[in-house]
Amino acid sequence: MQKIGKQTIKFDKPQTILETASIVGPKEAQGPLAKYFDNLLEDEFWGEKTWEKAESKLIKQAVNLVITKSGIPADLIDFCFAGDLLNQCISSSFGLRELNIPYFGIFGACSTFVEGMILSSILTESGAANNVLFGASSHFCSAEKQFRFPLELGNQRPPSSQWTVTGAGAAIISSSGNGPFVTYATPGKIVDKGIKDANNMGAAMAPAAVDTILSHFKDTGRNPSYYDAIITGDLGHIGKEIVIEMLQTYGYNVKQNYNDCGVLMFDKEKQDTHSGGSGCACCATVFSGYLFNKLKEGKYKKILLIATGALMNSTSSQQGESIPGIAHAISIEV
Amino acid sequence: MQKIGKQTIKFDKPQTILETASIVGPKEAQGPLAKYFDNLLEDEFWGEKTWEKAESKLIKQAVNLVITKSGIPADLIDFCFAGDLLNQCISSSFGLRELNIPYFGIFGACSTFVEGMILSSILTESGAANNVLFGASSHFCSAEKQFRFPLELGNQRPPSSQWTVTGAGAAIISSSGNGPFVTYATPGKIVDKGIKDANNMGAAMAPAAVDTILSHFKDTGRNPSYYDAIITGDLGHIGKEIVIEMLQTYGYNVKQNYNDCGVLMFDKEKQDTHSGGSGCACCATVFSGYLFNKLKEGKYKKILLIATGALMNSTSSQQGESIPGIAHAISIEV
Repeated sequence: MQKIGKQTIKFDKPQTILETASIVGPKEAQGPLAKYFDNLLEDEFWGEKTWEKAESKLIKQAVNLVITKSGIPADLIDFCFAGDLLNQCISSSFGLRELNIPYFGIFGACSTFVEGMILSSILTESGAANNVLFGASSHFCSAEKQFRFPLELGNQRPPSSQWTVTGAGAAIISSSGNGPFVTYATPGKIVDKGIKDANNMGAAMAPAAVDTILSHFKDTGRNPSYYDAIITGDLGHIGKEIVIEMLQTYGYNVKQNYNDCGVLMFDKEKQDTHSGGSGCACCATVFSGYLFNKLKEGKYKKILLIATGALMNSTSSQQGESIPGIAHAISIEV
Repeated sequence: MQKIGKQTIKFDKPQTILETASIVGPKEAQGPLAKYFDNLLEDEFWGEKTWEKAESKLIKQAVNLVITKSGIPADLIDFCFAGDLLNQCISSSFGLRELNIPYFGIFGACSTFVEGMILSSILTESGAANNVLFGASSHFCSAEKQFRFPLELGNQRPPSSQWTVTGAGAAIISSSGNGPFVTYATPGKIVDKGIKDANNMGAAMAPAAVDTILSHFKDTGRNPSYYDAIITGDLGHIGKEIVIEMLQTYGYNVKQNYNDCGVLMFDKEKQDTHSGGSGCACCATVFSGYLFNKLKEGKYKKILLIATGALMNSTSSQQGESIPGIAHAISIEV
């Protein structure tokens, strides 16, 4: 492993994404990617009394499922990384408290899944571990309740708002295997361009995505055409347009091969999600379901996945603060 | 680097803790460790309008200070890890948004500082980085407001409660240097023994500390007498007694060389903190101030630092959940 350029890590022995698992909620189950997910829920409670407990069950079951699918005994998984949007990341800690695997809690807001993938890959290549598990979750109802308004209020959502994905994705990185391989990682810096509209996360996070993508290209010497697909985490329709425009000003044309998990997750015409999907589970489930499938099928041979996060809370917005963004990129190749 | 036993990482090329910095609030400034901290605040606001902004300033200034003290140009610090207790870790993300160093957000509640130290050491030994910075913060007023009651209420605190430390600690791990060295790390599992009293964090976290300490001894073949000092993060007086008793039942006597940062931070007789200090900054500042000084002086040559965290939030307690604990251990030797 070595650092190249200003902020990119090159994996000398590319690490294998051994297996993934994904579970999504009822709205996602009606979306265009439904057939790629392992488990589709019929309602937002999944037999639990609260949305928070339902979200914990999502990550718990996604993690159990990826372990089962991988065929690796749980006691051969050395460490795990997880995080979510709930205050103090309780979805992960309650969901994984019976897992009995040493646990690193991470918080990158909606960039958490790729943050976990980067750190897991570092652990497996370094020799600290053979198999590392990581996952992330979010839940539309628990997120609305915590960050915005009580759902019972029936509050109107502005057109720039996004729909937090209900779901969880989990994956296992292994030091041995036949790929898909993690070849490069570009962890992002915090970027704050002064956006204060908590209903326009795409605009708040897009500059961070652009910063990380530019750093990745500069550090690796690659350009957009190297990749079959460049996929951001949850910028939605508005953020996606901003990324295309901003990269254009730097001389990069990504119109052909760039998309966003939040755009892919829902049908813009038939599903009323305004600017598209968001949340930790957006990138986590779209990767674990759809993108991993395309990599295994060989439809995609080289992808750049850039998960984006908004590092604010409701108190910071009430205190008039802007919204810092972050984006972590990872290059996955078969 | 290699994994030994069930959950311990052995650093083949021990990584150096190059420098530390610590800033504490007014109550900590009256405590027995005051002379070891770099900066003592006169009030809880530090010129800011809110406690949250004051906490962000704490981590920002602690990070700036450790960079200055280390003499390493900021652009030679490859990555940073930080986290705190505020919802969505906003102290860290707002405090470090101008830092311009690729950022990994972590959340281990009050175990965050050692989680950062472990991950930083893995990054430097692995070759992914030469210098990695990590830090953690907490603030009595922002924590009380968020987790318990408005301070203006003047609510009575039960005898088992602890006092969240106002402060921030930061440190830099480097792949080159003359120590103190990080030699072993034992990341912890989530342990939940069913404690539900949110005013007795020591009891909730002590079983996790014991689990990690036992794993560390088993994996490394060491026993308590190997270390000059075994120090837990923020169990306070009650949690400390529980650890001593529980380890006794496993045949380990730690009465001679075991203490807790929450016990060390405040004067039990003169300062009205009940069971002692707590919060991410408790372990972060006691290590960065007091313990690092003792290591540099050679008073301590071998310490085992075990930071403890309670992975709950106020919603989980209101929903009747118990409090999962976690503890990450790191062995530091000169």
